[in-house]
Amino acid sequence: MAYGLARRELSPRVPLRPGEGERDHLTSLEGLAALSLDALSSVAYGPEAIVLGLVAAGTGALTATLPITLVITFLLAVLVVSYTQVIAVHPDGGGAYAVSKKDLGAKVSLLAAASLVVDYVLTVAVSLAAGTDALASAFPALAGHKLVICLIGLAVLTAVNLRGVTDSARVLMLPTALFIAAIGGVIVVGLLRAHPAAVVGTAQSHPAHEALGILLVLKAFSSGCSALTGVEAIANAVPTFRTPRVQRAQRTELMLGAILALLLIGLAFLIHRDHVAPRGQVTVLAQLTAGSFGTGPAYYATNLLVTLALLLAANTSFGGLPVLMSLLARDNRLPHLFGLRAERPVYRYGVVALALLAALLLTAVDASTHRLIPLFAIGVFIGFTLSQLGLVRHWATERPAHWKPRALINGTGALLTTVATVILLTTKFLHGAWVVVVAIPLMMLLFARIQRYYAEVGRELELGRTPGPPALRERSLVIVPLGEVSKLARHAVSTALAFGGDVVAVAVHSDPDRARALQEAWQRWNPGVRLDIIDSPHRSLVQPIVEYVERAAGDGRQVAVLIPEVEPRHRRYEILQNQRGLLLAHILRSRTDVVVCMLPYRLSV
Amino acid sequence: MAYGLARRELSPRVPLRPGEGERDHLTSLEGLAALSLDALSSVAYGPEAIVLGLVAAGTGALTATLPITLVITFLLAVLVVSYTQVIAVHPDGGGAYAVSKKDLGAKVSLLAAASLVVDYVLTVAVSLAAGTDALASAFPALAGHKLVICLIGLAVLTAVNLRGVTDSARVLMLPTALFIAAIGGVIVVGLLRAHPAAVVGTAQSHPAHEALGILLVLKAFSSGCSALTGVEAIANAVPTFRTPRVQRAQRTELMLGAILALLLIGLAFLIHRDHVAPRGQVTVLAQLTAGSFGTGPAYYATNLLVTLALLLAANTSFGGLPVLMSLLARDNRLPHLFGLRAERPVYRYGVVALALLAALLLTAVDASTHRLIPLFAIGVFIGFTLSQLGLVRHWATERPAHWKPRALINGTGALLTTVATVILLTTKFLHGAWVVVVAIPLMMLLFARIQRYYAEVGRELELGRTPGPPALRERSLVIVPLGEVSKLARHAVSTALAFGGDVVAVAVHSDPDRARALQEAWQRWNPGVRLDIIDSPHRSLVQPIVEYVERAAGDGRQVAVLIPEVEPRHRRYEILQNQRGLLLAHILRSRTDVVVCMLPYRLSV
Repeated sequence: MAYGLARRELSPRVPLRPGEGERDHLTSLEGLAALSLDALSSVAYGPEAIVLGLVAAGTGALTATLPITLVITFLLAVLVVSYTQVIAVHPDGGGAYAVSKKDLGAKVSLLAAASLVVDYVLTVAVSLAAGTDALASAFPALAGHKLVICLIGLAVLTAVNLRGVTDSARVLMLPTALFIAAIGGVIVVGLLRAHPAAVVGTAQSHPAHEALGILLVLKAFSSGCSALTGVEAIANAVPTFRTPRVQRAQRTELMLGAILALLLIGLAFLIHRDHVAPRGQVTVLAQLTAGSFGTGPAYYATNLLVTLALLLAANTSFGGLPVLMSLLARDNRLPHLFGLRAERPVYRYGVVALALLAALLLTAVDASTHRLIPLFAIGVFIGFTLSQLGLVRHWATERPAHWKPRALINGTGALLTTVATVILLTTKFLHGAWVVVVAIPLMMLLFARIQRYYAEVGRELELGRTPGPPALRERSLVIVPLGEVSKLARHAVSTALAFGGDVVAVAVHSDPDRARALQEAWQRWNPGVRLDIIDSPHRSLVQPIVEYVERAAGDGRQVAVLIPEVEPRHRRYEILQNQRGLLLAHILRSRTDVVVCMLPYRLSV
Repeated sequence: MAYGLARRELSPRVPLRPGEGERDHLTSLEGLAALSLDALSSVAYGPEAIVLGLVAAGTGALTATLPITLVITFLLAVLVVSYTQVIAVHPDGGGAYAVSKKDLGAKVSLLAAASLVVDYVLTVAVSLAAGTDALASAFPALAGHKLVICLIGLAVLTAVNLRGVTDSARVLMLPTALFIAAIGGVIVVGLLRAHPAAVVGTAQSHPAHEALGILLVLKAFSSGCSALTGVEAIANAVPTFRTPRVQRAQRTELMLGAILALLLIGLAFLIHRDHVAPRGQVTVLAQLTAGSFGTGPAYYATNLLVTLALLLAANTSFGGLPVLMSLLARDNRLPHLFGLRAERPVYRYGVVALALLAALLLTAVDASTHRLIPLFAIGVFIGFTLSQLGLVRHWATERPAHWKPRALINGTGALLTTVATVILLTTKFLHGAWVVVVAIPLMMLLFARIQRYYAEVGRELELGRTPGPPALRERSLVIVPLGEVSKLARHAVSTALAFGGDVVAVAVHSDPDRARALQEAWQRWNPGVRLDIIDSPHRSLVQPIVEYVERAAGDGRQVAVLIPEVEPRHRRYEILQNQRGLLLAHILRSRTDVVVCMLPYRLSV
């Protein structure tokens, strides 16, 4: 999933900022540390998903865990090799959306975009849910409050990402290294022990609800595929590597594949040997940890490390989805506001959108990892398939030397991930995958509809054509609404006069005496500008001005309304000022075509 | 409480609208129907409050109900006579705030205003809570959902009053007539029956928690004073009467007093005779109704009529508080926004404020009438006292013929209501009255603080002084931020040129190629205006323009930024447009002193 570190690459023309030279780029090992957390943290929920799938056929069926894991590892190997070729062909990175737009056309890229959005949202949800599971394994008292913990974690990630996080990949190195060491330790120590250090598995035997048929195996396989999510991260981030980029990135990809494969097989072997079965509120990984390290401090430390790794994996989506949404906005496929960065270099609307979607999803499934897994891998595997298909198309079009074996590798990868996607969809459809099946086309429709709207606007504004020369118009009439003769009035009239057109002041009064007093005060002041006083028997102050302005603009003359605004020095006084001006501005803007100008006047109180 | 129908009178100089001639004014009988509901509906909770107060001394203590009611009726008589004099002296109406401002000075009027606010909010809360009690007496299934029912009723009242309700008093006539007939019927039929038609009182006897001492009697008296709320309504609405206004209004006031007194004494007598005691979810009035009419259709109809009367009584506050708040806003004692009416002749901020306060209060006491009563009468009685004190001051100052007996009447009224207020405060302090004791001074402080702020602003703006002549300034520089060359750009540049000053266009690009393309398109177009392109390596689009504008305004030159806004025809497309322009406008307005102009461009899509 990780576009997290690929921000810069997704917009490759952005020049590096000061201090962003080659020295800041990653070696292979650094790249591994920085970019693999998303994929590696999948070991926290992937093996567990297999076990949970198989146990429906009773505890005996758990023997199928190891062979299924081996099949998944084979798929991993094909994917990794296929992705080394993606790295070579797309050294600018760019991810499934950019690549499929280039190689497979605009329509297909909509599918890529929609599945990526699903993928990012699910990465956040699954990682937070699995992280909470790990935390609750160490501290059982938390088990009853998983949703709340997830939402707190999500709120923290959102707040951090709204403030803007450092792009530095190096922050992730230590957690990654510790995570690999911890899980590797669980496996190595487990293999060395004759018997688990703590009770593993459960006293209760799981009765068989169904026979261990091919369907059940396929279900367990498709659940286990969630362990493969994240292996595309390195291919998306090639430009963050030090020269020679492609070689370093490929080496990193292979290392990631090897480590992930070892962890998956090692964990599956321990599950197989120790007959680990699902147990209440303790995850399979936590059971294995207890089996290797006992339930002392090392157990707590490992669970906390797993939680941290999953939290950081969730964070990669916050680096990725907002950037993807900004790209979609630039392609007119999402509202332009997702491309907006104001004071901080943060796509805040994308961050908020991701947070809301993830919160919705977590709440809908009550923070259950188990219920999220069926939705999870589909989006990722659609991305896998599209990336590899794009490469096949690339080889077939470009036909460089040795293109055929290369196309074969990517073709095999595409075929396998297609098969996996079909298995995922068919076996998990009723378990939640239908949500994704409904959501992806709806999103594609939305993107297309937005694109059509912007195209229509573009035609209407004649974008790309040279417009006629500026219209020669009569001087503007500047209307200044005023309440009384004061320094504010002086400021407003002076400003209006400096525009150079005609100026007229206008006031509304429901009380003839006050109207007369105002007119007299105006004549005493004598600013050289006419004051029109409108009588408003209904005491409405805004409506009469709107009508006055409409009359003035009625003969086709360009009208600007200059609304003076008193700005208090302290924010808490804002409620005391300007409401009338803001209301007038709002109504003028929604009902008329006049220019509405706000003139600030700063107070010292 | 009822300023409800006094809107026009509170602003006596507003000319009548077409069709608002003498014919629309009220006769005495019409006035009674239109203005008495607030006071008369008090019989739904007043007698009940006495009974609930006395029962702490056991069922036997309920014999004190009748004498306490007679004392309250005596107080009512004094109040009514005193108010006939208020009517004569203040034929323009105006209520306790306006009257005390005139007769007792600005400081005291703050107290009047604060107690009136409390009064209005409590009228809404108590009426809704008591109305729900009446409804739940007829339909016991609703008893568990009183708060929800209250809040629904409140939401309906708020919605209706935000839309704007007719001022027509005649709408209230039928409900009032039916209400008087129903309660009168309960009393007359009850007096004619030898035995109640249904079980009245309760099987369970109430044990005595305390002796029937003087304190308990005072407590019951002060609770019962809630029955007097609303008798000031007619005095506030004298100008709605037909000539001779004063005489008609006085007659109405006397009629109201007589009817209210008869209803109170009649109900108290029935309570006394039939030994009515509090019973679970059935109000005392509902018990009496069942005793007279049985529990057939007449019982349901009467309870529904009582509910309707109380809902309409709650509605009078929606006519009153927003008007009072607009008066306070005009006196600079509340934010001016409470005096704002935009498209409808409705003080929407006042309506919303009242709804929020009432909802808060109802939620805090869980819609319990019993818990609201101790807070209720205090605000009203402060108003009573101030109105009558004002009149005493008036007599002592003006000294017309026979001023002494008149002053004596008002003085006696003021003394009695003062004593009642003191009793209310001392006996109910710990039961909730402390909230009012805290809220009223805090509100007075708030009003005073707001007034001081506006006074400071007035000094700074030199309100009331003739300012110097308009400053002669250099022609304005109009900066037009643009994204591309299009019809929108042509519209914006044409508009800027029509202002008559210097015009410069500005664009931001992070991509040198696109910047070059834009510059070329600009030169092809050649609109006679310079285009500055700002390079923004950080992709921020708004910040560079803000800095550009700050530089341009730096040398003291007047700068206006003209931001073109694309306005889609359909509201649902608004999210797709203008976010950048709005953000730019927002940041410019908060950070700079330049004039910010919004130029609409309406699309056909």
